[in-house]
Amino acid sequence: PKQHRMYGRYTQELGVYAKEEAARLRDGGVRDGGGLRRNTSVRSRTADLLEYEKDPCAKCQLCASRCQKFLISRVGEDWIFLILLGLLMALVSWVMDYAIAFCQEAQKWMHGGLDSNMLLQYIAWVSYPVVLITFSAGFTQILAPQAVGSGIPEMKTILRGVVLKEYLTFKTFVAKVIGLTCALGSGMPLGKEGPFVHVASLCAALLSKLMAAVFGGIYMNELRNTEMLSAACAVGVGCCFAAPIGGVLFSIEVTSTFFAVRNYWRGFFAATFSAFVFRLLTVSNQEEETITALFKTRFRLDFPFDLQELPAFAILGIACGFGGALFVYLNRHIVECMRKQKTINKFLLRKRLVYPALVTLLVSTLTFPPGFGQFMAGQLTQHESLVALFDNRTWCRQGVAEEFDYISHHHAWKHPQVNVFITLILFIVMKFWMSAVATTMPVPCGAFMPVFLIGAAFGRLVGEIMATMFPDGIHGDVYPIVPGGYAVVGAAALSGAVTHTVSTAVIVFELTGQISHILPVMIAVILANAVAQALQPSLYDSIIRIKKLPYLPELGMGHHEKYNIRVEDIMVRDVRFITLNSSYRDLQEMLLTGHLKTLALVECRDSMILLGSIERLQLQSLLSLQLSRQRRLEYLRQLAQDNGAHDPLPSLTSDSTPSSPCAQVHPNTPTNTSARQVVRFLVSTHLFFLTLVSIPLQIAEWEDQQLDQLVDFKNCKIDPAPFQLVEQTSLHKTHTIFSLLGLGHAYVTSMGRLVGVVSLKELRKAIEGSVTVTGVKVRPPLASFRDSGNSTSVSEVTELHKLCMRHRGLSLCCWYMCQMKCNKSMLVIKQREIADCII
Amino acid sequence: PKQHRMYGRYTQELGVYAKEEAARLRDGGVRDGGGLRRNTSVRSRTADLLEYEKDPCAKCQLCASRCQKFLISRVGEDWIFLILLGLLMALVSWVMDYAIAFCQEAQKWMHGGLDSNMLLQYIAWVSYPVVLITFSAGFTQILAPQAVGSGIPEMKTILRGVVLKEYLTFKTFVAKVIGLTCALGSGMPLGKEGPFVHVASLCAALLSKLMAAVFGGIYMNELRNTEMLSAACAVGVGCCFAAPIGGVLFSIEVTSTFFAVRNYWRGFFAATFSAFVFRLLTVSNQEEETITALFKTRFRLDFPFDLQELPAFAILGIACGFGGALFVYLNRHIVECMRKQKTINKFLLRKRLVYPALVTLLVSTLTFPPGFGQFMAGQLTQHESLVALFDNRTWCRQGVAEEFDYISHHHAWKHPQVNVFITLILFIVMKFWMSAVATTMPVPCGAFMPVFLIGAAFGRLVGEIMATMFPDGIHGDVYPIVPGGYAVVGAAALSGAVTHTVSTAVIVFELTGQISHILPVMIAVILANAVAQALQPSLYDSIIRIKKLPYLPELGMGHHEKYNIRVEDIMVRDVRFITLNSSYRDLQEMLLTGHLKTLALVECRDSMILLGSIERLQLQSLLSLQLSRQRRLEYLRQLAQDNGAHDPLPSLTSDSTPSSPCAQVHPNTPTNTSARQVVRFLVSTHLFFLTLVSIPLQIAEWEDQQLDQLVDFKNCKIDPAPFQLVEQTSLHKTHTIFSLLGLGHAYVTSMGRLVGVVSLKELRKAIEGSVTVTGVKVRPPLASFRDSGNSTSVSEVTELHKLCMRHRGLSLCCWYMCQMKCNKSMLVIKQREIADCII
Repeated sequence: PKQHRMYGRYTQELGVYAKEEAARLRDGGVRDGGGLRRNTSVRSRTADLLEYEKDPCAKCQLCASRCQKFLISRVGEDWIFLILLGLLMALVSWVMDYAIAFCQEAQKWMHGGLDSNMLLQYIAWVSYPVVLITFSAGFTQILAPQAVGSGIPEMKTILRGVVLKEYLTFKTFVAKVIGLTCALGSGMPLGKEGPFVHVASLCAALLSKLMAAVFGGIYMNELRNTEMLSAACAVGVGCCFAAPIGGVLFSIEVTSTFFAVRNYWRGFFAATFSAFVFRLLTVSNQEEETITALFKTRFRLDFPFDLQELPAFAILGIACGFGGALFVYLNRHIVECMRKQKTINKFLLRKRLVYPALVTLLVSTLTFPPGFGQFMAGQLTQHESLVALFDNRTWCRQGVAEEFDYISHHHAWKHPQVNVFITLILFIVMKFWMSAVATTMPVPCGAFMPVFLIGAAFGRLVGEIMATMFPDGIHGDVYPIVPGGYAVVGAAALSGAVTHTVSTAVIVFELTGQISHILPVMIAVILANAVAQALQPSLYDSIIRIKKLPYLPELGMGHHEKYNIRVEDIMVRDVRFITLNSSYRDLQEMLLTGHLKTLALVECRDSMILLGSIERLQLQSLLSLQLSRQRRLEYLRQLAQDNGAHDPLPSLTSDSTPSSPCAQVHPNTPTNTSARQVVRFLVSTHLFFLTLVSIPLQIAEWEDQQLDQLVDFKNCKIDPAPFQLVEQTSLHKTHTIFSLLGLGHAYVTSMGRLVGVVSLKELRKAIEGSVTVTGVKVRPPLASFRDSGNSTSVSEVTELHKLCMRHRGLSLCCWYMCQMKCNKSMLVIKQREIADCII
Repeated sequence: PKQHRMYGRYTQELGVYAKEEAARLRDGGVRDGGGLRRNTSVRSRTADLLEYEKDPCAKCQLCASRCQKFLISRVGEDWIFLILLGLLMALVSWVMDYAIAFCQEAQKWMHGGLDSNMLLQYIAWVSYPVVLITFSAGFTQILAPQAVGSGIPEMKTILRGVVLKEYLTFKTFVAKVIGLTCALGSGMPLGKEGPFVHVASLCAALLSKLMAAVFGGIYMNELRNTEMLSAACAVGVGCCFAAPIGGVLFSIEVTSTFFAVRNYWRGFFAATFSAFVFRLLTVSNQEEETITALFKTRFRLDFPFDLQELPAFAILGIACGFGGALFVYLNRHIVECMRKQKTINKFLLRKRLVYPALVTLLVSTLTFPPGFGQFMAGQLTQHESLVALFDNRTWCRQGVAEEFDYISHHHAWKHPQVNVFITLILFIVMKFWMSAVATTMPVPCGAFMPVFLIGAAFGRLVGEIMATMFPDGIHGDVYPIVPGGYAVVGAAALSGAVTHTVSTAVIVFELTGQISHILPVMIAVILANAVAQALQPSLYDSIIRIKKLPYLPELGMGHHEKYNIRVEDIMVRDVRFITLNSSYRDLQEMLLTGHLKTLALVECRDSMILLGSIERLQLQSLLSLQLSRQRRLEYLRQLAQDNGAHDPLPSLTSDSTPSSPCAQVHPNTPTNTSARQVVRFLVSTHLFFLTLVSIPLQIAEWEDQQLDQLVDFKNCKIDPAPFQLVEQTSLHKTHTIFSLLGLGHAYVTSMGRLVGVVSLKELRKAIEGSVTVTGVKVRPPLASFRDSGNSTSVSEVTELHKLCMRHRGLSLCCWYMCQMKCNKSMLVIKQREIADCII
């Protein structure tokens, strides 16, 4: 690995893009190795063949070694990796589910066992989750703080090509798995789906590393690892919900900007295998008879819903859209509030475990079943609540709850004093803010499942209301309304709104094992998405913004004014560059004033022809090399040699302890000194003090001289092909290129000349709608030349461009209008400028 | 539109990539328009406000005009377009289905009415489809031959950025819709799904044009149109099967290489709306009670399948994979056979309608119900067959067919003398080759539905066999085996294998309305895909190859040796270029010898710095301008002026009929000529003959001079930023960039110097596995320099690179090994070269 790192460091100079670089360099290593290996294998094969001539027994050996080679090469195949990944994740998922169920059973058992004493019961009910959550937070904090939260925002950023440190290590894996198990075992309204995406990616990354260490070769390819990571995201969702198709789609929607269809089968393969094994483990544990859906529903097939119910479904979808936006807003607001309140913030920073403990205390107090919890089905776990909500019976007739009989925990929704509507509304409202608060805790947790549950409850509420309004169905007594169907629709719509995905529809079908409500689900999900996307970013984008991860937001839907933005509107024209004629002083200034990671190298200030880009570190090392201690000593020695032949300085500099000349000066041992030594001492001391005065001056002078020299780029790594755009490139295309290639910045050139630079920041601004046009947007080359003739010459365009660059500003368009006699209608000028011009 | 075209033609000179160019240019137009409109709107608004001061009634007008503007701007929103598209396509689909059903009913009615006379019955049964197919083929041939076939391959190519002429016109739309209706109405084993993708794209393109004509603005943006086209493909599949989710996924898998997730919602929205309206029309026509699935199944929910059945499903999947590959092979082989057989080919080219008529005759003869058709359920339409195959009853107990009772057309599968297995096997075998042959007919038709049907029949066969083997289910009598489930699995697997898609699984769920068999379906589809992809290209890729469309194949799955290919391995090093110092003679040579569409422009032969690329047409016009008739005449006039003052030539050249000097020479009118005229005539004739001899020589000389001049690029359109790669760019990245940006070729540069060019051809070769490395693949800069020190200078790398370029060939590596003393292990050399070196 050390050699690889050297390669990595070394070969950055010939690359294309930062990321591909790294891949290529590692590849370089791999290929070299491969070359050698092939080379030796040719030889060994020839040797083997020669051997064979001599000894027939060698035939078997040859055959065996060939088989071995074949097997090893097969291990490199993708599908073996994917099967291993799927198997591993299914096991992790199943074991975690088992542990979580055990934790929740334990809480129930304690709660049930202590029903003689309410206070003890309360203490047991509350302390259990507090301890678990505090442990989870503390454990994660100590082992790997990166494991906190959902992980989807980070995966999104990583898949974009940004390297986030420590996000894919074994420590993080352990912290995430154990922390998540504890957090979910506490019964808080948290989900396992987001973290599972992260866990699966961790698994894939670690497995890749392991395979690379064992088998080498293909497993070292970075591009391949990225492909595997995107498959891993699908596996994460797939084995969490046993929903392979929905998992693949959800992971694509949530993590990718551009999806390579060639990776599609990988996700499907791994997710299906993983979901299969996950469900198989359940069957093998004799919990179920055969493999079926996780939350199986039993709605009637013949007439799942009436067409007249569609408006109700649509309203449900729109309401879920608003709800989703509110959830994202609330979640972000809580985090921001915490940060702004300085006293709270300080306190929380010091005592990191207090906040989760307090939140858990509050939530579990409110859900205490004999207390307030009785009005909101507090004793049910998420899984039980969902099963109950997806039930295909109607809970109420005329507002009064029926007797539930066939599954015991339906009793939780029935309260002797309170209407079932009140229970549902309380459940929705309380769970809503509880989930929003709980997901801000610093433990590994997701928000999908709580939101899904709230959506289901909201859907059930709407369904029950519909059932009350039309007790005999809309048309007659034949087909009564199924409130469970509404719950399914609501769950899909709300989770879709919060995550800005459409694939929750598919997840819901796979979770329930029924697709009969496809139309209402699709309608509600699409409407919810439309509303939520118009109001708020998705939950994951919101977290990305809060965490300030280097991510490029999506181009919003339907904002067609974005189609008209060009690179020239957003680029920074004042590019910081160095030329081949730059002096070290320029370099120093550049480094002191700016803080860019890379600088452009151009031929000279006049031509501005872009030659490449240089990293800041490279320049710093160039500068420090020029003014290095070694060179300074060299200079001093030179100086001393020039001064005289007896040369006292070498004794100072070439001494074994040159750093402590004072030891020599200090007259600690005068008793042993002879007269000659005394004289020599006096001379050297004298000279030393002389130089002590003069040397700093000389060095300053020398440094000045050194800084005035031209930079020698000989020992500097230059990226000869940084990514270039032209001014006319559209925002759309730029966004595409940036997100596909994972660029951080790109230079804008015009006929090879550097004219600007676009970085993520500018792009983000443009997309978020706050473009401030730096110059006036004039397109005269097109306009005027169309009038002047059929074709334009290179030089003319260049000339015009120069003019444009020189006469930037408001007066430009007027100037153009008069000077160039160009057709006014051809000028594309921002409204503001036009208004100014007219005045 | 004309102005736009001018813009389009004009602004090609400043572009980035050919495609974006076009978009930008049109954009340019749009923006200019927008600028103007905004400008005037500012003015008018100010005017309005002034007006308002005077007259209170103007307030209403102002308000109304604002509302109007708002409405028009809203019409530009994407979702309105998508709704219109969905609505239109649903209507088209429904009307077509209605017409097809009517056609098929008519055939049945004829067949039923004539049951007294077998011969008449046969003639009616056979002539009806022959007439319809012949009409369809003829109609399509005359109106728009582009409408022939499925259309998915073409859409794939168009979405890649290639402009295929006439594929998206109104004529094609009419030809496709009418041709398809007739073809499907004939009852041949053809599908409507592929053509529907094309029809939907046509709809979108036409609708875009219409909207652009009416509302202008955003509808002219080409990027947007591409986004809409990809949504349209989803609509096509969605409204054909009433399967929105599967439609979106299928269209993504089939048409895209890279999918922009931001387009996802468009597809979902439009497809859902379209499927909704399509099914709603059925309900409104009182064919059904409410909206349900197209081929609804009624399998039991509690225990859909036993885990022990999974091996059977897996075997079914693998068999379907082989079957799918065989189908693609057969289909391609038939086409290629036809082409190779010259006599057949000639005959068919002359009589284009004979082939479809013959095929139809053969197929319909074989399916004639009282004839051979009775053994293969010949009288059933595709729809009826599918409904029967998906039935949840078991057809046989111990090999004997039960009595079918509840839907009449189950009788077709029951034959008094023949086992149901025989019927199914005959059905599968006959339909298999019939479908493969029928889809080669020159009519608009797809192959998805026939393949789906064959798959269902094959699945049913396996299911029936399983049911016979385990008559009481695998475990006991509780849950017998459901052969219908096998039919569903088989349908998904075979269609997935033929099209190389996984999303057929989703389509099948949506078609049947049941998701209970998700696990077997996923397993079978993935296995079928794995087998089929290893053996044959997908049907659409096969057609792309047959039609030689400019499409880049996918990077195959799991071929990890592809990760190691770099641009330097595949690029053409012998780039044809022109320099700024090129003479017109060079240009002429270049144009005469090569046939590239664009040529690179470099600074000079030594520096090779890439300045841009020029289109061939541009160069041709430069050359013809230099040697133009006008300039020649100019020269001749000049020559004449130099020769003498009396200058006889102007009379030749500046004459009103200079092209007929013979008229002057011919002494037709000597009677009228005076002596002076005679003299003048003689002189001029003399001079004329003199010049007649000398001019060609002079002109040849002049042309020589002209050709030796340096090319003046002033009047030439140059693309200043052609797409550039570097040598180290990997094949993966190159493929990504090419397919994403729709490039045709890209230049390879190294430090700004042109070193090679990569075009689609090279890429295709590399992907298809026939890379021939032109030079030796040596990576000495990396190798030797790593040994020599920590960092490499720019000049050293350049020098080495030059060396590399000079000493190309086999001796290179030996030379390097000795000369450069570089570490052998760092050389990456192809095995062949190494072997040669060692010898």
